[in-house]
Amino acid sequence: MTRVVLHDYFRSSASYRVRIALNLKGVAYERHEVSLLNGDQKSEAYRAINPQGFVPMLEWDGQRLTQSLAIFDFLDSHVKEPPLVPGDPDGRAHVLSLALTIACDIHPLNNLRVLKYLKNELGHEQAEVDAWYRYWVVEGLAALEALAAPRAGAFLYGDTVGMADICLVPQLFNARRFDVPLDAYPTLLRAEAASLALPAFAAAHPDAQESAA
Amino acid sequence: MTRVVLHDYFRSSASYRVRIALNLKGVAYERHEVSLLNGDQKSEAYRAINPQGFVPMLEWDGQRLTQSLAIFDFLDSHVKEPPLVPGDPDGRAHVLSLALTIACDIHPLNNLRVLKYLKNELGHEQAEVDAWYRYWVVEGLAALEALAAPRAGAFLYGDTVGMADICLVPQLFNARRFDVPLDAYPTLLRAEAASLALPAFAAAHPDAQESAA
Repeated sequence: MTRVVLHDYFRSSASYRVRIALNLKGVAYERHEVSLLNGDQKSEAYRAINPQGFVPMLEWDGQRLTQSLAIFDFLDSHVKEPPLVPGDPDGRAHVLSLALTIACDIHPLNNLRVLKYLKNELGHEQAEVDAWYRYWVVEGLAALEALAAPRAGAFLYGDTVGMADICLVPQLFNARRFDVPLDAYPTLLRAEAASLALPAFAAAHPDAQESAA
Repeated sequence: MTRVVLHDYFRSSASYRVRIALNLKGVAYERHEVSLLNGDQKSEAYRAINPQGFVPMLEWDGQRLTQSLAIFDFLDSHVKEPPLVPGDPDGRAHVLSLALTIACDIHPLNNLRVLKYLKNELGHEQAEVDAWYRYWVVEGLAALEALAAPRAGAFLYGDTVGMADICLVPQLFNARRFDVPLDAYPTLLRAEAASLALPAFAAAHPDAQESAA
């Protein structure tokens, strides 16, 4: 029996992604919370196993895996069903580009360490930090809507849930926390609703994690 | 004969990555420069084929592909040799995590649109923008060095060039433009030197592109 431990934080987008993927694959895992709010990611104990000090990190029979999109690829190799990306090269490239639009063009600009730098190092007020957050989300979601719409179905790519949806749902959860209006993205909202109806997504939601109690 | 057109900008990191990958695979391509300096990426003509207005975009027999890491995956499907990621799941996950550390944790914070926002929207002096640039590069390269060192050889993963090296070389090129000291990253410097000795990398270098003349 494979021992799987997920080091995560309940509200971290990339952690939320990995919880969804593990649930979709039906992989049972122990959860080890690393509180970003308390700075646990900078603790000596955590740095010893993950020098970068980021979440999520997945331990798979002792092997340590970082970067949510690399973890998806690893999971697809080890647990075939359901695949997180389509089998055909064109579909793969499309779904990967949707996921990467979120993972490279939106999320890195808006994660906690960046918002903290704007506030603490550059001295910005919360209103300016919020405006920064919204600016990159709106830029990114508009691009994603345009990219996804032509080939979307119930989900971002056809009628099968996959890696793009897994990245989308946490991003929209975060966008709502910052009161970003989402009406301009009907394709994204449709895929989000279809995803959230699945138990794998519901169980991965930040509010469903123990620390959120 | 497949018609391959790369829409790129000579100094864009992600474009530089794709040129390297195409060269390694021996794929002949036409290059269509989109000058980020002149704002060509915002032109109606370019937005019509790429609504996000980013480079690179690869046209492969008319199919339009965005996101450099998705393009690598597509290339690996269509042109098997040399593979850009290892065949075994563990090696794959490791190389993908190295590439994603660059593509998600460093590059998005430092690309032109972000530096422009800091300057124009938030009113920062060039010195503050440069400090921002260096801060994220140093954070990211330190993480990458720690992550890569245990399994590196001549290249970032063993003695075979791959996707991680393809992402590394443009990132270090950029770091040097901003005078970031690199002595603390011997593994990265070794992989960079081995990579730059390959004709595929030399031919992809920004200075070797026509617009750089």
